[in-house]
Amino acid sequence: MQIGKVVGTLVSTRKDEKLTGLKFLVVQPVDIDGRPTGGYVVAADAVGAGVEEYVLYATGSSARQTVLTDKRPCDATIMAIVDTWEIGGEIKYRKNE
Amino acid sequence: MQIGKVVGTLVSTRKDEKLTGLKFLVVQPVDIDGRPTGGYVVAADAVGAGVEEYVLYATGSSARQTVLTDKRPCDATIMAIVDTWEIGGEIKYRKNE
Amino acid sequence: MQIGKVVGTLVSTRKDEKLTGLKFLVVQPVDIDGRPTGGYVVAADAVGAGVEEYVLYATGSSARQTVLTDKRPCDATIMAIVDTWEIGGEIKYRKNE
Amino acid sequence: MQIGKVVGTLVSTRKDEKLTGLKFLVVQPVDIDGRPTGGYVVAADAVGAGVEEYVLYATGSSARQTVLTDKRPCDATIMAIVDTWEIGGEIKYRKNE
Amino acid sequence: MQIGKVVGTLVSTRKDEKLTGLKFLVVQPVDIDGRPTGGYVVAADAVGAGVEEYVLYATGSSARQTVLTDKRPCDATIMAIVDTWEIGGEIKYRKNE
Repeated sequence: MQIGKVVGTLVSTRKDEKLTGLKFLVVQPVDIDGRPTGGYVVAADAVGAGVEEYVLYATGSSARQTVLTDKRPCDATIMAIVDTWEIGGEIKYRKNE
Repeated sequence: MQIGKVVGTLVSTRKDEKLTGLKFLVVQPVDIDGRPTGGYVVAADAVGAGVEEYVLYATGSSARQTVLTDKRPCDATIMAIVDTWEIGGEIKYRKNE
Repeated sequence: MQIGKVVGTLVSTRKDEKLTGLKFLVVQPVDIDGRPTGGYVVAADAVGAGVEEYVLYATGSSARQTVLTDKRPCDATIMAIVDTWEIGGEIKYRKNE
Repeated sequence: MQIGKVVGTLVSTRKDEKLTGLKFLVVQPVDIDGRPTGGYVVAADAVGAGVEEYVLYATGSSARQTVLTDKRPCDATIMAIVDTWEIGGEIKYRKNE
Repeated sequence: MQIGKVVGTLVSTRKDEKLTGLKFLVVQPVDIDGRPTGGYVVAADAVGAGVEEYVLYATGSSARQTVLTDKRPCDATIMAIVDTWEIGGEIKYRKNE
């Protein structure tokens, strides 16, 4: 998984029928210090994430293992909202701080 | 998923039998502002997309989760046409504008 | 899928038993104008492609969805020979021209 | 698989229900000499690895083949702790040395 | 698949139970002329390959399609030892030469 920051939303009305009800968020991967690394991914939201939140997202077939994304044509899913991560004993990020 | 712009078409008559009926489009991935990032992907079209449209495409096994691409040797599928996306409250793209 | 040009062949006699009968071709991915982009992939041939031909190849689990490659340890398969592709109304390649 | 060094931990309380009980570690991939190559991955821990340890991790659907990660939305799993690796007869790393 | 040269070995005693009996080799991907391209992969050995040999390896779910790696948390497998490959009619490598 990668850590990402939710930066936006994407809307589509004309889509494969299996996608009905999925919410798409635009996520920027961040480095180990929380800085954007370039690039982005459009991910389905399985946890009710909001813009500005740091999240964990899974890609590939693992993105379809949530109840929400099962058997859907979706290759990236936000499956967790990050509370905190630390590197070498140093807290790099803590939610609501 | 990535956002891409449909820029062309590809035709093949001699192909694996499981591919019969699939339409192949050439898609250029775009960055968060809608600019081509280099590279391209040839994707099956599951939603009736047209040249110049901005679409969402899935890759890997997720590309086979549409009714159209099920169990076919296809690793990229356009599964949605983008209406709009916004980043940080700013609309980056709106269809037919 | 990516477009590639078949540039060579690879032979192996000592291999996993599930690979018996598969033909391996060396394929160079090309850009949207048909020029090699660097790199290569060794792909199983599901359509009888020949050296110098432009082909479409699928990777990952999608490479196993042809009758020939089903359940085999093969992560890249040529599943179509390209007749023509065009970008923005301009034909970039036509077979036998 | 890639060799990585465990450098940190990540905590999430709001996550997909299928993730309950999984421990997430931050892993930096290393090169053949054991030096960080840049980048990181957040991986589920299937072997009780600790910070500072060198591990082997699998990605993609293979990351779901442990008992711990089966059918979970997890695309990277630590599935082995490295004792030693050698290149060209030279030992590059030995645990507890 | 990619062509690689086996350059080393990796040993792990503390690992997921499903990995018992698998032998791990360190493989360097090579370019079309047989030169290392940088990077490496740790692959399970399904064909009895030895150090210094040129091999073909598969990644992702395809790496689990050998009898040896079936349902195991392994994302790269050596599934063939290369006898020879040629590019544009020129032999780039022949075993035991």
